[in-house]
Amino acid sequence: MFIWDRIKDYMNAEMEKMGVKNSYFPLLIPESLLKKESEHFAGFTPEVAWVTEAGDQKLEERLAVRPTSETIMYTMYAKWIHGTSDLPLKLNQWNSVVRWETSSTRPFLRTKEFLWQEAHTAHATREEALIEAKRALDLYERTLKELLAIPVIKGVKSEKEKFKGALFTFTLEAMMPDGKAIQMATSHMLGQNFSIPFEIEYVDEKGNKNYVWQTSWGISWRVIGAMVMMHGDDKGLIIPPKVAPTQVVIVPVVYKGKVDPTSEAKRMAEEIAKAGIRVVVDDRQDKTPGYKYNEWEMKGVPLRVEVGPRDLENGTAVLARRDTGEKKQVKRADLVGEVNATLKDVQEQLYERAKKKLERMTLPVADMAALKDVVTNRKGFAVANWCGARECEDKVYEETGATIRCIEETQGENCIVCGRPAKYRAYISRAY
Amino acid sequence: MFIWDRIKDYMNAEMEKMGVKNSYFPLLIPESLLKKESEHFAGFTPEVAWVTEAGDQKLEERLAVRPTSETIMYTMYAKWIHGTSDLPLKLNQWNSVVRWETSSTRPFLRTKEFLWQEAHTAHATREEALIEAKRALDLYERTLKELLAIPVIKGVKSEKEKFKGALFTFTLEAMMPDGKAIQMATSHMLGQNFSIPFEIEYVDEKGNKNYVWQTSWGISWRVIGAMVMMHGDDKGLIIPPKVAPTQVVIVPVVYKGKVDPTSEAKRMAEEIAKAGIRVVVDDRQDKTPGYKYNEWEMKGVPLRVEVGPRDLENGTAVLARRDTGEKKQVKRADLVGEVNATLKDVQEQLYERAKKKLERMTLPVADMAALKDVVTNRKGFAVANWCGARECEDKVYEETGATIRCIEETQGENCIVCGRPAKYRAYISRAY
Repeated sequence: MFIWDRIKDYMNAEMEKMGVKNSYFPLLIPESLLKKESEHFAGFTPEVAWVTEAGDQKLEERLAVRPTSETIMYTMYAKWIHGTSDLPLKLNQWNSVVRWETSSTRPFLRTKEFLWQEAHTAHATREEALIEAKRALDLYERTLKELLAIPVIKGVKSEKEKFKGALFTFTLEAMMPDGKAIQMATSHMLGQNFSIPFEIEYVDEKGNKNYVWQTSWGISWRVIGAMVMMHGDDKGLIIPPKVAPTQVVIVPVVYKGKVDPTSEAKRMAEEIAKAGIRVVVDDRQDKTPGYKYNEWEMKGVPLRVEVGPRDLENGTAVLARRDTGEKKQVKRADLVGEVNATLKDVQEQLYERAKKKLERMTLPVADMAALKDVVTNRKGFAVANWCGARECEDKVYEETGATIRCIEETQGENCIVCGRPAKYRAYISRAY
Repeated sequence: MFIWDRIKDYMNAEMEKMGVKNSYFPLLIPESLLKKESEHFAGFTPEVAWVTEAGDQKLEERLAVRPTSETIMYTMYAKWIHGTSDLPLKLNQWNSVVRWETSSTRPFLRTKEFLWQEAHTAHATREEALIEAKRALDLYERTLKELLAIPVIKGVKSEKEKFKGALFTFTLEAMMPDGKAIQMATSHMLGQNFSIPFEIEYVDEKGNKNYVWQTSWGISWRVIGAMVMMHGDDKGLIIPPKVAPTQVVIVPVVYKGKVDPTSEAKRMAEEIAKAGIRVVVDDRQDKTPGYKYNEWEMKGVPLRVEVGPRDLENGTAVLARRDTGEKKQVKRADLVGEVNATLKDVQEQLYERAKKKLERMTLPVADMAALKDVVTNRKGFAVANWCGARECEDKVYEETGATIRCIEETQGENCIVCGRPAKYRAYISRAY
């Protein structure tokens, strides 16, 4: 929750600059509302949890536990939007949604209920909506880079994989060390798909009625699951410093018959805390230093400070990085500066290493054999030319178990499946 | 939402000092879990919304949409708490809960779904739990005073009015201008009522097993409803500066043929914004100053700055307070300081006026006739001696429509209903 709250804080500040305001809309959505945009409804209905009773009464109409808020928000947008001065309207919610996944649930990655943020914007023109949808994707890319140190591939979803109800969907895809991709965040260009059935209209300067152009965009706590997989190792978690609940742990190393460094450790902690760094002293008497090192490493604390009797004599301390295992002796007087610089470096290096790994795992392929080899043996994104036809997309899945995660426009070269001219460069991999 | 987010920020900082961490638990709670503490279940069952279907399936067990999270949280507490080093455990959630109120719903005050915060703490001893429950009440009192400028009466709920499942309930009660009380926040001493059925035990230093002592405490968005009623007037809202989305509106007063003060208004706004104050310039061309004044007054913006051609000549501006309507000419050079000081004074005066009003509306009564007069004609809290018997409490309600909002311990004097020795001083009024 601490990590999620840091994501909230960062994004709230950024959304404020974009003119997006926080809001709250009801959890329970009448079935009739949900049905208003039929593609959208068809997409969600297999996974909706329904409230049918309240107290001792049977309800006359089933209520959906919010799977997403388009329909309930846009009912209000239709009442609030009349003229150009009501536009753009940009509201965000931090809430939880329920989607009744029945198979292969996994903590953070695929859960029946998940925390997310959903923003919904309405604009006078198609161009404005498109700019907003792209800005949202940029915000997500920045959030993932700056806070979670996760690099991503940026692209568009195929027709098959897009949000039902959107004209098209922008997406960020990350590659996990095991070779499976994770969709990290999406931003939808809704066009007028909702404004028409929900009658969200505005009168322009000439007195003409127009339907608004809309976007919706969301990011969920699955990014925390991706962070765990991306940076963790066999010793446990590695949490990027910017989101780590504890950024520094100080372990005083006590030797019998020597000066006890515990009170010095506490003084160090005070100084470090004063610099705005989240620090704890582990002064448990009944645990050895080794036990403590292992425990804090498992918990992913990015930096450990060790201080023993010899450090007291020499005016030094030892910094141990969680990400590389590197140890470094520093002068006691430089401690706060060194801690600050090291945390900054850990944050940057986690990203740089992940980025290099992503590059190594992104492999152009020219035929189906190479594609199969990449997604099954070598693991990663196979980058292939694609004609855009659904048959070819389906065939890739049938033969390899991999899906098109996102596409970029291209032209001229040949589709890896059918050999016709390619319209897209497709990033293909197995996925969570 | 802006106001609620300010309450969140304030309380999160205070809860951090108390060692309370934010968390999230599932929205849907299996019926069997909810039934585990029978008093608690009996209290909620008439107002639970039930999920019975998901996708196309009928569920085997009904799932309650969270009416409160004791049962789902304490199931985990039982797994997490083993020894004294696991205590105290203090977790908070900011979420929404559903209680199927069927009659007299009102925005913010009584809604089927509402936003709130619920904290749940577990302690080794009764004393510690009691201290925590009282600290929580103090935190609420401070939040209401500092942010919403709402004074309250502090006390304990009667057996009849307490949270079912608690040993006893602390409460804060505010008095609205119409003479009806509102429960603003409650803090429950749960004792071992939940730790026994949920088997939340710890092993103490001597190796003995003990059930933990627990508290839970919550405050909901109904405080925003109370804020509206408490401070508003016939012109509209009056929002206390600390939570006002817009704290200052600047209206340039344009006269034909005179120098236009709009760009000066914008410079003022820049200076005021730099001081961390939320300010807007209303430079709409198609509205008169009078129209703008009314609109911003309705929206409750606590301070208006007017600047016209004569102000430009004289190097002045006019401040107009929303709470008193008072106008004051200030020197242009002193503007930011004056704005800051005035906002501070508005915040304080709103509280002071409300406090005096609460004092005027709190009236000791010595017999049933006086009690009836206070709660029906004079409006407010009737403060009466009460023996503590349920019959007398019921009789007060039957004869006056008023309820005991909270009690303080007292002794010696006579119960207003039966004449027996009083145990309590009771605050009695009608309520929302």
